[in-house]
Amino acid sequence: MKALDKLIALFRRFPGVGPKQAERFALYVIKTPDGRIEELAESLRAVKNSVRCCAECANYAEEELCPVCADRSRDRSVICVVSQPQDAAAIEKTRTFNGVYHVLHGSISPMDGVNCEGLKLKELLERVRASDGAVSELIIATNPDTEGETTAIYLTRILKDSVPSITRLACGVPLGGDINYMDEVTLGYALKGRTKI
Amino acid sequence: MKALDKLIALFRRFPGVGPKQAERFALYVIKTPDGRIEELAESLRAVKNSVRCCAECANYAEEELCPVCADRSRDRSVICVVSQPQDAAAIEKTRTFNGVYHVLHGSISPMDGVNCEGLKLKELLERVRASDGAVSELIIATNPDTEGETTAIYLTRILKDSVPSITRLACGVPLGGDINYMDEVTLGYALKGRTKI
Repeated sequence: MKALDKLIALFRRFPGVGPKQAERFALYVIKTPDGRIEELAESLRAVKNSVRCCAECANYAEEELCPVCADRSRDRSVICVVSQPQDAAAIEKTRTFNGVYHVLHGSISPMDGVNCEGLKLKELLERVRASDGAVSELIIATNPDTEGETTAIYLTRILKDSVPSITRLACGVPLGGDINYMDEVTLGYALKGRTKI
Repeated sequence: MKALDKLIALFRRFPGVGPKQAERFALYVIKTPDGRIEELAESLRAVKNSVRCCAECANYAEEELCPVCADRSRDRSVICVVSQPQDAAAIEKTRTFNGVYHVLHGSISPMDGVNCEGLKLKELLERVRASDGAVSELIIATNPDTEGETTAIYLTRILKDSVPSITRLACGVPLGGDINYMDEVTLGYALKGRTKI
C-alpha cells in the first residue's frame, strides 16, 4: 500500500523511531478522526512557518525575540551559554536562573576536526562586545563530555578578556546517585568541588 | 511558544510517546528542511484520504480490495481470522500462509461486557455463507489471552455448522524461549500439544 508505506517511511526518520513504532504511528493516523490529523498537518506547517531563531540569543522563537529575551525583568548581565535549545529549556525548568541564554546550536567536536561552522559563536562574541561591558558573568552550560569541554575551553579563550567572570556548571554526584557506582572521574570532580556545609 | 507547544501536545497523543520524545519530535520538525515536513503533512492527508477497509476481508486497503484479496493465486477456501491489521501483516511475513484473511478490528472483551459493536463479525458470517460451502477451514489467530480466547470460543460457536474445520494457532514455548522461565499455563499447552519428531 503506497500511501501507508510512505507515511511509515517518513515516521522512520523521526529520532529514535524504529520500524515497529513507525507502523504503530501510521495505524494511529488511520484510526484517528480526520479532523485531528488535519490539525496535525496544519500544526506541522505552522511550526515550520513561525519558528525561527531569537534575534538576541538564537534560541527558538515565534516572535522577533524569544520569551526569555522579551522578558524585561531578566538579568541581562548574566548569559548562560548552552549547546541546544532543549538545554535552555531544562535550565528554565529549575526556576533558579534569572539571567538570559545564548544557544550555540551545537558544540565543537575535536574528533571531526575543530568545526565551528553553523555554531552561533560569532553572534555570542558580537553580543558580548555590543553590551559594552554590561555582561558580568558567562555561565558555560555545555555537556560535561569531550565536545562540551572543548567548547567551554574555546569560549573561555576567546572571551576571557571581555567578561569579568566565566563559570562552568558544577560537576559531581547527581541527586539520588550512588557513590559506589559512580565513575571515578565524576567522583574526582565531586571531591575537588566539595562545598562547605 | 504556541505553535511549538501545540505540535508537542499533538505528538503526545501518539501511542507510547512521552513528553521527552514529543519534544524531540518537535525539534526534529524544526530542524528538518521545509520540503520534507510538507511531504509529511501531505502524506498524513494522503493516508486519511486513501486508506479504507477491504470490501472482502476488512483489512486496510487503498483500493476496493487489499493486496491479498486482489491476488487471485491465494487460496480462498482457508480464512485466517485476526483481531488487528498488524496481526495479518505479521502472519504475512512468515511467508507460510497462502490463504486469505478476515480482520475483526478488535476482540470480544468479557471484562467490559460482551461487546461486539464495531467488530466485523457479521461480515465474517456473511462471507462464509456467501461462499456456499467453499470455505473449508477457518484458522482463528486471535491472541492467546482472555479477549482472544473469548473471541475464538464465540466464533467457533456461531460458525461450527458452516465450516468443516475450525482451528486455532498452536500455543507453546516460543523459539529461543527458556523452559525454566516459562509460565506454567504456556508450558502446559506446549506439553498437551506436543508433536512427534
